Amino acid sequence: MLCPFQIKFEEVEERYVEPFHFTLDAVCEKTGARAGTLTTPHGIIKTPVFMPVGTLGTVKSLAPEDLAGLNAQIILGNTYHLYLRPGCDVIDEFGGLHQFMNWDRPLLTDSGGFQIFSLAKLQKMTEEGAHFQSHIDGSRHLLTPEKAMEIQVCLGSDIAMALDECIPYPASHEQALESLGLTTRWGKRSKEAWEQTKRPGHALFGIVQGGMYGDLRKQSAEELREIGFDGYALGGLSVGEPRDLMLEMAGISLPYLPQDRPRYIMGVGKPQDLVDMVNLGADMFDCVLPTRNARNGQLFTSRGPLNICNAQHRTSSLPVDEECQCYTCRNYSRAYLRHLYMSRELLSYRLNTIHNIAFFISLMEKAREAVLANSYEAFYKDFFQKIETGA
Amino acid sequence: MLCPFQIKFEEVEERYVEPFHFTLDAVCEKTGARAGTLTTPHGIIKTPVFMPVGTLGTVKSLAPEDLAGLNAQIILGNTYHLYLRPGCDVIDEFGGLHQFMNWDRPLLTDSGGFQIFSLAKLQKMTEEGAHFQSHIDGSRHLLTPEKAMEIQVCLGSDIAMALDECIPYPASHEQALESLGLTTRWGKRSKEAWEQTKRPGHALFGIVQGGMYGDLRKQSAEELREIGFDGYALGGLSVGEPRDLMLEMAGISLPYLPQDRPRYIMGVGKPQDLVDMVNLGADMFDCVLPTRNARNGQLFTSRGPLNICNAQHRTSSLPVDEECQCYTCRNYSRAYLRHLYMSRELLSYRLNTIHNIAFFISLMEKAREAVLANSYEAFYKDFFQKIETGA
Ligand SMILES: [Zn+2]
Ligand SMILES: [Zn+2]
Repeated sequence: MLCPFQIKFEEVEERYVEPFHFTLDAVCEKTGARAGTLTTPHGIIKTPVFMPVGTLGTVKSLAPEDLAGLNAQIILGNTYHLYLRPGCDVIDEFGGLHQFMNWDRPLLTDSGGFQIFSLAKLQKMTEEGAHFQSHIDGSRHLLTPEKAMEIQVCLGSDIAMALDECIPYPASHEQALESLGLTTRWGKRSKEAWEQTKRPGHALFGIVQGGMYGDLRKQSAEELREIGFDGYALGGLSVGEPRDLMLEMAGISLPYLPQDRPRYIMGVGKPQDLVDMVNLGADMFDCVLPTRNARNGQLFTSRGPLNICNAQHRTSSLPVDEECQCYTCRNYSRAYLRHLYMSRELLSYRLNTIHNIAFFISLMEKAREAVLANSYEAFYKDFFQKIETGA
Repeated sequence: MLCPFQIKFEEVEERYVEPFHFTLDAVCEKTGARAGTLTTPHGIIKTPVFMPVGTLGTVKSLAPEDLAGLNAQIILGNTYHLYLRPGCDVIDEFGGLHQFMNWDRPLLTDSGGFQIFSLAKLQKMTEEGAHFQSHIDGSRHLLTPEKAMEIQVCLGSDIAMALDECIPYPASHEQALESLGLTTRWGKRSKEAWEQTKRPGHALFGIVQGGMYGDLRKQSAEELREIGFDGYALGGLSVGEPRDLMLEMAGISLPYLPQDRPRYIMGVGKPQDLVDMVNLGADMFDCVLPTRNARNGQLFTSRGPLNICNAQHRTSSLPVDEECQCYTCRNYSRAYLRHLYMSRELLSYRLNTIHNIAFFISLMEKAREAVLANSYEAFYKDFFQKIETGA
């Protein structure tokens, strides 16, 4: 009997079209806000873009059709998590993560540096790489830059990330300097390994570190630029520092990155943070906030956050956000969503997640429209007015 | 601003077409297997039919579109559960459970008798009704037959169930006789209350009890028939008795029910049980087995059960069941489903549930086709041969 999956794989394969490149569609004249187009082997991405996080080869509670229905242009996978579970040999059987998880749009994978820093037990960084113990079974592993590339080639990521080291906040200037040196050297080795093994047309991004020190952020950006990547990310933000400091670091780092390459802010953040970061010239975002908060009943709206378990929603026939056009808001009342959440029904997590991701994605779509209309400043003012005052 | 939900309600309302009735399309000449058509205010149901259980106003992990995609013709809600949470006042705000949960096909609601028996604390039956304490917060309640009808009218069930008393297995003849008397008297009061308050065209079914005593099953069936219901159910089966005894009781009871009314076997069971019950002349089924087992990684297939966490599926690119055409089987491998399940990912529960419900629904569709083709005997033999031997 013919295996239906093999047919599917070939269909996916045929969609591989163009090698990775980035074009700027517009730059707002008054702010630094940009609108661009990323072309990847699995299709085109309009920026600025929010990328939902699918750590283990699934955006928690959603199927690929849900994501496509939300206009998710690209989602994230995670090297550290997928390497540990299900393991690369499993995903290799399917030719990559796209086929394994039934997702035919672009995929970006983080390198694992941040997850080793935040999740793994007994992690130790040496020049060679990151030594760590699995958070699942305690097994010992060594993730080198070369290994991180090998895994991401196996996963078939349209955009892979260089291996970096993350440091805690606060960290001394000395510690941050030493760490950034390692990140640069790992970046160079990542690039070399990538060039030898990458799938045609797939991209590698470097990750700017340097803690909360402007001089080190500049140094990191310049060293990575020297190596030369398809795109650049800011790592080590939103690790506990005050919001102003985070924005200051982004504001210092971004101008040192090439204008003609995409700029990705990793792991940030609230809707307000995204709008501020776009203002500073950032193009790409990922964050677990919309998905994680959804599972805790915290919903984002254009008029500020809404806690669905609040008793005031008990009989409310209103949608979560009257301005939202998502599946959840088109079909369900706050009262039903509250009932599902209070009853810990599985559908609750999915409907909440759909709304929260829709909110983040449509926020970036509106930001893009504003840039193209050269009205980002007005969009910015409007957005903050509404979300901060609820009026 | 116009509330999108109100528009929706009116649309649903317009679909109310015909009052409840049942027509027999065919009866297998060799066996007692029947094919019929149930007409309800929310549409037509072809029998035999499997009805997925949506206890709290959601079939666990699925959205209404998932269910429609599975050709679910009717789903269940539960009086006991919905009365306690979210409460009838909430559902009343929306005009009924259909609108509250966004489901526009037929709904059947159990009366709560079985749930009080199996879930509630300190339950005590008196002539007046069932006294019980909520399993959620310990609050005290009294469910009378009249109250059970009031709640089900509020829910807007296309098919409501009379209040019955369930007894444990084993139970003495004396206990079973006494209980069946109460069920009959409650059935009469249910019918009287229903006739005074029901929504036009909605149906009420009576529930045959009598424990594992053939004479009492006969007596119960005759007494309910005397009262006169739109359909008849067999309750108190699959409560711990041997499978042969369950089938024997069904075989004794069914002939005493009117030919021209639908016959519903409550809370049963395995695929094999359904095929056997259809053979005895039953038309409708509900069971939590496909949904509950899905959440435990137990999948039903035409060649017997499959445990998705089994290591043999680690790299398998096969679908769960090569004969299944469900969304899960068309798009996902056993390896991916195993990965999701081992990682306790929310999508696991949904994909597994979709498959298991698809299996039960399509099994009843095939049974119907066999009855219409007058080949139920061959279908029966084939089905058991395959599922029991796996060959
Ligand atoms: Zn929404
Ligand atoms: Zn299937």
